[in-house]
Amino acid sequence: MAKKPLRVGMIGYGFMGRAHSNAYKQVGQFFPSNHEVVLQAACARNADEVKKFADQWGYASTETDWRKLIERKDIDVIDICTPNNMHKEIAIAAAAAGKAILCEKPLAMNVPEGREMVAAVEKAGVPNMVWYNYRRIPAVTLAKKLIDEGRLGKIFHYRAKFLQDWTIKSDLPQGGQGLWRLDAAAAGSGVSGDLLAHCIDTSIWLNGRLDSVCAMTETFVKERMHTLTGKVEKVSIDDACTFMGRYENGSLANFESTRYARGHKALYTFEINGEDMSLFWDLHDLHRLQIFDYKVEGKLRGWSSIHVTDNGGDHPYMKNWWVPGLAIGYDSSFTHQVADFIQGLESGTPQGPTFKDALETQCVLDAILDSAKGQKWVDVAKA
Amino acid sequence: MAKKPLRVGMIGYGFMGRAHSNAYKQVGQFFPSNHEVVLQAACARNADEVKKFADQWGYASTETDWRKLIERKDIDVIDICTPNNMHKEIAIAAAAAGKAILCEKPLAMNVPEGREMVAAVEKAGVPNMVWYNYRRIPAVTLAKKLIDEGRLGKIFHYRAKFLQDWTIKSDLPQGGQGLWRLDAAAAGSGVSGDLLAHCIDTSIWLNGRLDSVCAMTETFVKERMHTLTGKVEKVSIDDACTFMGRYENGSLANFESTRYARGHKALYTFEINGEDMSLFWDLHDLHRLQIFDYKVEGKLRGWSSIHVTDNGGDHPYMKNWWVPGLAIGYDSSFTHQVADFIQGLESGTPQGPTFKDALETQCVLDAILDSAKGQKWVDVAKA
Amino acid sequence: MAKKPLRVGMIGYGFMGRAHSNAYKQVGQFFPSNHEVVLQAACARNADEVKKFADQWGYASTETDWRKLIERKDIDVIDICTPNNMHKEIAIAAAAAGKAILCEKPLAMNVPEGREMVAAVEKAGVPNMVWYNYRRIPAVTLAKKLIDEGRLGKIFHYRAKFLQDWTIKSDLPQGGQGLWRLDAAAAGSGVSGDLLAHCIDTSIWLNGRLDSVCAMTETFVKERMHTLTGKVEKVSIDDACTFMGRYENGSLANFESTRYARGHKALYTFEINGEDMSLFWDLHDLHRLQIFDYKVEGKLRGWSSIHVTDNGGDHPYMKNWWVPGLAIGYDSSFTHQVADFIQGLESGTPQGPTFKDALETQCVLDAILDSAKGQKWVDVAKA
Amino acid sequence: MAKKPLRVGMIGYGFMGRAHSNAYKQVGQFFPSNHEVVLQAACARNADEVKKFADQWGYASTETDWRKLIERKDIDVIDICTPNNMHKEIAIAAAAAGKAILCEKPLAMNVPEGREMVAAVEKAGVPNMVWYNYRRIPAVTLAKKLIDEGRLGKIFHYRAKFLQDWTIKSDLPQGGQGLWRLDAAAAGSGVSGDLLAHCIDTSIWLNGRLDSVCAMTETFVKERMHTLTGKVEKVSIDDACTFMGRYENGSLANFESTRYARGHKALYTFEINGEDMSLFWDLHDLHRLQIFDYKVEGKLRGWSSIHVTDNGGDHPYMKNWWVPGLAIGYDSSFTHQVADFIQGLESGTPQGPTFKDALETQCVLDAILDSAKGQKWVDVAKA
Repeated sequence: MAKKPLRVGMIGYGFMGRAHSNAYKQVGQFFPSNHEVVLQAACARNADEVKKFADQWGYASTETDWRKLIERKDIDVIDICTPNNMHKEIAIAAAAAGKAILCEKPLAMNVPEGREMVAAVEKAGVPNMVWYNYRRIPAVTLAKKLIDEGRLGKIFHYRAKFLQDWTIKSDLPQGGQGLWRLDAAAAGSGVSGDLLAHCIDTSIWLNGRLDSVCAMTETFVKERMHTLTGKVEKVSIDDACTFMGRYENGSLANFESTRYARGHKALYTFEINGEDMSLFWDLHDLHRLQIFDYKVEGKLRGWSSIHVTDNGGDHPYMKNWWVPGLAIGYDSSFTHQVADFIQGLESGTPQGPTFKDALETQCVLDAILDSAKGQKWVDVAKA
Repeated sequence: MAKKPLRVGMIGYGFMGRAHSNAYKQVGQFFPSNHEVVLQAACARNADEVKKFADQWGYASTETDWRKLIERKDIDVIDICTPNNMHKEIAIAAAAAGKAILCEKPLAMNVPEGREMVAAVEKAGVPNMVWYNYRRIPAVTLAKKLIDEGRLGKIFHYRAKFLQDWTIKSDLPQGGQGLWRLDAAAAGSGVSGDLLAHCIDTSIWLNGRLDSVCAMTETFVKERMHTLTGKVEKVSIDDACTFMGRYENGSLANFESTRYARGHKALYTFEINGEDMSLFWDLHDLHRLQIFDYKVEGKLRGWSSIHVTDNGGDHPYMKNWWVPGLAIGYDSSFTHQVADFIQGLESGTPQGPTFKDALETQCVLDAILDSAKGQKWVDVAKA
Repeated sequence: MAKKPLRVGMIGYGFMGRAHSNAYKQVGQFFPSNHEVVLQAACARNADEVKKFADQWGYASTETDWRKLIERKDIDVIDICTPNNMHKEIAIAAAAAGKAILCEKPLAMNVPEGREMVAAVEKAGVPNMVWYNYRRIPAVTLAKKLIDEGRLGKIFHYRAKFLQDWTIKSDLPQGGQGLWRLDAAAAGSGVSGDLLAHCIDTSIWLNGRLDSVCAMTETFVKERMHTLTGKVEKVSIDDACTFMGRYENGSLANFESTRYARGHKALYTFEINGEDMSLFWDLHDLHRLQIFDYKVEGKLRGWSSIHVTDNGGDHPYMKNWWVPGLAIGYDSSFTHQVADFIQGLESGTPQGPTFKDALETQCVLDAILDSAKGQKWVDVAKA
Repeated sequence: MAKKPLRVGMIGYGFMGRAHSNAYKQVGQFFPSNHEVVLQAACARNADEVKKFADQWGYASTETDWRKLIERKDIDVIDICTPNNMHKEIAIAAAAAGKAILCEKPLAMNVPEGREMVAAVEKAGVPNMVWYNYRRIPAVTLAKKLIDEGRLGKIFHYRAKFLQDWTIKSDLPQGGQGLWRLDAAAAGSGVSGDLLAHCIDTSIWLNGRLDSVCAMTETFVKERMHTLTGKVEKVSIDDACTFMGRYENGSLANFESTRYARGHKALYTFEINGEDMSLFWDLHDLHRLQIFDYKVEGKLRGWSSIHVTDNGGDHPYMKNWWVPGLAIGYDSSFTHQVADFIQGLESGTPQGPTFKDALETQCVLDAILDSAKGQKWVDVAKA
């Protein structure tokens, strides 16, 4: 049986453009379905750069104007890998053109933008998803499974951190290619939108709605050279953000993110303490889930490190990869997301995180920034 | 040369009474000095129990009234191991009687009490110390040494947690022997005074003064049987407490404590992120200090786990114990504290934490509880 | 500039057929060169199965007779992923046909076969390589780099283990698809050729020639149903093999492999103790290299865990992948091997392990089996 | 009720003299019994040194001739902490004098000496024990308990190592105070008797009799200055020793010890792989036992790290110490051994390891050295 093509139009060619492209190329071999992903077109303003990217990754054509890409009839899916300040406009146009949309995170610059985007995809009825890829690290998916099975009992605490150290150097500039994450005009915020957004998405998925938050932010380096203006300019992003909060289910939140934690590169960790079981995960050793199971006999109780690589059916996604003991990498989370997106298309049951799901995270992000500014507790708006 | 006796009068015989007594007995063998600790008298209201304790530990006599103990001429040091609500009265009386005082932590029920106690020992001019024993775990002392040598550079973050799980069971009663820590009338507060107090003391020692804090507390189990009244009564302690804060040196604080973190027994951890070095310590593996040293050559950089057991002079206190690789236990921290207390007596330079030092921690504790109650940021009072 | 095609003819479609195919598809995107790998033909006896495999992975054609594949003019490289008892015949024929050859490990069933294979590729002058892929896990490559830089000083000990637990079940059959590794007729040996071969290859690469060995083997389950004959037959493979040895450089070897170590899936570890530095690596956490550097200042010395994911140039292969902190998987080692194979073709300097290199490992394997059988020390033959 | 005195005569005042003395002083407080240990006399050739030791530790008297000590009527127990070459003579004399004997390990210089010693204590009917203290680290005792409960099923592998790095420096002298372990005349052997002896004792206790062994030894530094002769002399001890073996129960042994493993101070580890459960322990983190329990549900299986500090009855010895999460040190193993020795006296059931038990270890040691010398497999003699 011939497979149905799924023709991708990719906007952007940076780190995420590469990660998504690798997933599009891998998915058919590891997660075969009735669809065949076709790398139809890559789009970016710089013609030379996008041509080079397209050649390397096998995109059949290029565009330099995203509006033209969206108009093309031979494109089924638009993948938005631009800086955050472009998400809204592109997504709304793509929805209007009837394209399915895969958008990088965070969904938008703020909640109002996010609401417009959700309205657009819902009105157009197009499939939509946001690249909160960590949900699909097998160890994280296993955590979700254990929670859904009720193994944790009542949950008391949810703790998450995302620690990096790459901006400690004060002579690192802000803005432009590769550095737009330091420029609030392009990124919307600093670690909140870049890093905490991941932690919040996972947390809502695992532990439900956050009701209220109280946050503190700090910008350690106050001014940096701006690569686009050539001038030293004020830094407007948050270099670090810590917040406390309360979940609808009565549990307590403690979240922290920074780019000034010397020694940590991408230390995204979460820990959940339930009455009957606790869970811990760490992106630096992403193939492991640690659990403490109180139901185990007293003298044998301890923190157990599960090497989530079993291909016998016990561990999510792993039967499609290698044999037990052999770890897959960070990149596989994107392959899983594409596989699930296709599975959603085929089954008619959309797989999350949808734009609507991502709007919930956006509501928390806005509440955090509002709280930090006002030095007060803030209720999280409903999505 | 005959040694000078240091005659101890111990008030209380619980967990801390035992830990201190073990230290008094060990100190002469491992840290010889010109003083000889003499277990002169043990004091508690229950005559049978205190007799049993005194026999087991070798105290020469017993008392059932702490006022009588303080009046005795043959006592040089009063060790206060009672519930917190007795600290002030005993300490002030002991100071008035000219006794040296070793007081369990937290210093007092609140800042006003603490101020009275500081005034009393300063007026009397008696040696005084508070049992914040974790300063003297060799790995923690090594952390202090590295900070004092300026190895961390500018400090950005200080993170501490103290997690336990022993009160999850809702049918655990409150109050009375062994359970007074669940009764606010005896303990003053819950995890704040019991656990966070340790974290705050270490943090002030390592990172300096906390300027302002914003806290959240929770009491998960609202009512418990009270062993003294026999009735189900409201629980007034904090079961969990999280706070954010800002240090005088510009770094950010993230602290958390709870007795509802399933799988953790006494997981006191701290992490400090400096520009040039980061440090991490964990009470569950108390003989290790983890460091990340940015000054190491690029390709060799990693988190290094120092087994703090070297007896060649590199590791604090360890030359007095065994040989490299052989860990000492939790109990040794008390032995070190007694050794340093005596060293302070002999050198004339008091060793901390003094009552005054402990008052600083009390000021943070009061600010936290005030903040949690008012849901607002609170400035920490000066000690 | 048009790239030069490198047309692959793959023989076999099992676990390794998939792993290699993934590498062929990935290499052009992550390690661009002047060559383009083309999946030209897949070959296996079962026409339906090979067709299914070819469709899934994008091979342009199929064959059911490996001799026909070798005769095809449109094939540049033969990849041998068959059971071990087919390696020799195929490799010699492929060499005679002037094909480059990538052969799965171990090279052969025994040393005499290996010698014939080496002679064949050397006579034909064809590029040749053996899939000892662990050399190209970035953490292992970093270990090689540190040794080559002379950082370890005199080496005293080399210790390696490869522990699994998948054959403990006594009702697991032997022989046939997926189970040929339990059948000595197809595999040559048990854990020696399957697992220790990897350990030995890495060890020779890192620490040089092994002079003499003394081994012990055991077959815990003596009989198993044979899937090809349908009868219970004697098990002739080694289930476990331990050996001691002496290296040419004066260091001591301790190697062990088993499929009866409950709890270990693919725990390949090695540790090297040198006068100035020790190294440790573990396949279960393959992205980490642990080092102890004696040249570090005394009080800071510890075992350091390097997260080998730096993309700034410090860590081998990693600048071609993601950003620091994001781990790549087991599969990437094959991608690296293809990249290096191509680099060898382009530079004219063959990249190891060549057939000749792999023959050295074969000499150790034969010596081990000989030693275990004779219960004596055996000198390792020169390759 | 008055306690029965147990008057100790200690011979030696080095590292072990201190460790035992600490245990004698602690045992009454932590493990009360009907006996009271009395530090009656310390004995060593150097009158000044032994006086200093006696004063520091509270021994009531001193002797400079061990024969006089043994003749004293006011001594109940002789504790032998001399170099190994004195064990036999002292033990036989002490037995003849009717003293109970606690002897440091290894029991003797060789099997014939050991047999004489066993005969002497058995003829005299005196209580006897050897200080293989690691049996009584709570995590190790827990391992024994799990094995005795049959939790491991059939055992396939026993692996042990004891790695140090303190003799790498070639200018370290041999012989004399603190360095007699490098002198074969005083120690009998090197790492075999010093370190492997511990591993073998634990292994026989946990896994039963070793039938046959095949060993390799090495002396890396061939000559060292001898502190007693002042001359450079040949080094006769084994710096490193590796051996393979077979147990009576069909499992395989892999043991290794060295003083040339840079980065390891006292890394005594053992791992046992059984059909249903595997166990791992490590002296550097002595308060933890790691287990893999195959009976746990598939997706939850992992290596679990048990923090062996529970005081509720689950963990051996721990109800006598502190509260969960608070680790005890290396020194506590001696306290436990004294407690059990007394319990053996009171119950009439001698607690091991007795001299007879230690002779079994001696038989393995002799077989190892014999095997290494002859480069052959050697059967282990029956004790």
